[in-house]
Amino acid sequence: MTEDNRTPVTVIGLGSMGRALAEAFVDAGHPTTVWNRTPGKAEPLLAKGAFGAETVAAAVSASPLVVTCLTTFEATRRALEPAVAALDGRALVTLNSGSPAGARATAAWATASGARFLGGAIKNVPSAVGGADTLLYYGGDRTVFDEYEGTLRVLGGDTVHLGDAADLAALYEMAVGGTLLPALVGFFQGAAAVQARGLKVSTLVPFTVKWFEMINSVLPVFADEIDRGDYREAASSVNLFVAGAAEDDEFGKEANVDMSWHAPLRALLERAVEAGYGDQSISALVEVLKQPSPAASSSTTTPS
Amino acid sequence: MTEDNRTPVTVIGLGSMGRALAEAFVDAGHPTTVWNRTPGKAEPLLAKGAFGAETVAAAVSASPLVVTCLTTFEATRRALEPAVAALDGRALVTLNSGSPAGARATAAWATASGARFLGGAIKNVPSAVGGADTLLYYGGDRTVFDEYEGTLRVLGGDTVHLGDAADLAALYEMAVGGTLLPALVGFFQGAAAVQARGLKVSTLVPFTVKWFEMINSVLPVFADEIDRGDYREAASSVNLFVAGAAEDDEFGKEANVDMSWHAPLRALLERAVEAGYGDQSISALVEVLKQPSPAASSSTTTPS
Ligand SMILES: NC(=O)c1ccc[n+]([C@@H]2O[C@H](COP(=O)([O-])OP(=O)(O)OC[C@H]3O[C@@H](n4cnc5c(N)ncnc54)[C@H](OP(=O)(O)O)[C@@H]3O)[C@@H](O)[C@H]2O)c1
Ligand SMILES: NC(=O)c1ccc[n+]([C@@H]2O[C@H](COP(=O)([O-])OP(=O)(O)OC[C@H]3O[C@@H](n4cnc5c(N)ncnc54)[C@H](OP(=O)(O)O)[C@@H]3O)[C@@H](O)[C@H]2O)c1
Repeated sequence: MTEDNRTPVTVIGLGSMGRALAEAFVDAGHPTTVWNRTPGKAEPLLAKGAFGAETVAAAVSASPLVVTCLTTFEATRRALEPAVAALDGRALVTLNSGSPAGARATAAWATASGARFLGGAIKNVPSAVGGADTLLYYGGDRTVFDEYEGTLRVLGGDTVHLGDAADLAALYEMAVGGTLLPALVGFFQGAAAVQARGLKVSTLVPFTVKWFEMINSVLPVFADEIDRGDYREAASSVNLFVAGAAEDDEFGKEANVDMSWHAPLRALLERAVEAGYGDQSISALVEVLKQPSPAASSSTTTPS
Repeated sequence: MTEDNRTPVTVIGLGSMGRALAEAFVDAGHPTTVWNRTPGKAEPLLAKGAFGAETVAAAVSASPLVVTCLTTFEATRRALEPAVAALDGRALVTLNSGSPAGARATAAWATASGARFLGGAIKNVPSAVGGADTLLYYGGDRTVFDEYEGTLRVLGGDTVHLGDAADLAALYEMAVGGTLLPALVGFFQGAAAVQARGLKVSTLVPFTVKWFEMINSVLPVFADEIDRGDYREAASSVNLFVAGAAEDDEFGKEANVDMSWHAPLRALLERAVEAGYGDQSISALVEVLKQPSPAASSSTTTPS
């Protein structure tokens, strides 16, 4: 086998992530064609041996496997519109963020153009592309995954097919990603408190790292409780969190940190207590989240 | 050296955590005296070779090093009140959760009784007590830490003295622990979304674990930005999170998950954009958290 046997790949969209993807393919010896709306961004890749395409249609025509990395699903469809005829018979793999509905709309659009569709997501930063441990998951046409798995694995060693539904990667990406902003704001709040005492935030990092490792170690237990729908054997009860909430206020006041973003979290705890989950596992909050919030439901109630 | 040279220790408070602490001391060959308000809880420890004390004063008198693990700082002071004379000349180490103010009050109270005070915290579950990797941190009298470090290390291999202030462990515990509830609710929200599609929540765990590892890998960068107060070189900008927030709504609606707890997180993002941090690092949120929330400040404004 020589380099000539490697699958030709086209990468469309050369933002920070798309550039990293294209570079990984070039480095792995795949004949790589690139296209970007703003042409300048292709330059460093061309210097490394990628082929430039004049139009998006030419880019799509250049390879059996087309990988896109644009901002959104809508931008992806819009950018590919002039290449719709060329899509017929190709495998289209999207690697942008977006909602499950956006993934389904793009799959339907691509399939109607005669393409096979695989919707992917990369849960990491561009510099992690190509790492043995880097996770990419895909949902959609299994034949695309089976045919090109070796090529896709160039982007990350932990490459997974979640199932045949085109929106599964988007679903898991949003389900997993929902922890990011709240977890970070929790860290920033702690950072503000430590700073208020004249201490360096960097001193907080090793302890927070251990803490997230501890959270990771208990997730399988919570997942199992939720899958069984049985919250009665509580290692950490809802009431334990209710008790902790009172101390949070005192802490916020002393450190001069705005803790107002906690209010709806407490409301969730209270709703769990009201529903009878007080001495059951904190994972019972999932049942509360499945109910519409009182605020939301009251606003849709017609006054009688 | 034989077992007879090991420091005698008293453990007061034999709840789930106190029991684990006492057991670790017994297993390591320390002469261990135990006391609990409800006496039955001492039984399994006595069977393992611990000494029972009739009164809390007798328990305190039995050892130079007294470790307490009660629910709160207030409960700790109340429980030790009958032993106040016996505290004179002893080292008191607290290992409960609580606010920095609670730690300071307990330190002042203990010091007035002639005890040396060290306030500790264990950021883990009882089953982790004694682990080589288990973290316990302490703040307060350095002479206590230096004298008894070997004994305290029995409780966890990662044993740290944070500084001389008695409330440092409480400060760090609250600063670190502030990520727990928000991160868990983020996970539960994803769990509800995955369940709405008939998928098992356990399938979400390995991806979430990787995600927290990814978050851990970027914390040093955020800490450094905050310590320098310079948010201009953004790997993940505030605007990126603002863009993501719109998709969250669509996602919540489709999965029938209550996303109303996100509202104040968005308000924080908006305040960051208004303050000019839009294209700067998400860690700039720490500056917003240091300002009183508009809701809180407006409620304290006297109408003119
Ligand atoms: N960067 C990360 O850390 C990261 C991590 C995981 C996932 N992702 C996801 O990967 C995707 C791309 O991210 P990125 O960081 O590479 O974004 P970026 O640097 O902002 O690049 C966006 C790309 O999309 C193109 N684009 C946008 N709208 C277009 C349109 N209507 N027509 C043609 N091209 C259009 C841009 O072309 P121009 O150059 O012409 O503007 C550019 O190539 C996003 O969905 C992001 O959420 C990123
Ligand atoms: N369990 C964990 O996973 C964990 C993890 C990290 C930190 N912690 C912290 O460790 C501390 C203890 O937790 P735990 O799980 O062991 O709690 P627990 O099982 O509820 O036990 C509480 C203990 O405090 C005693 N107590 C409470 N009020 C008292 C009073 N006024 N006078 C005398 N004794 C009193 C109880 O005595 P009785 O038996 O007579 O009621 C019992 O021994 C808490 O601050 C907790 O936040 C726990």
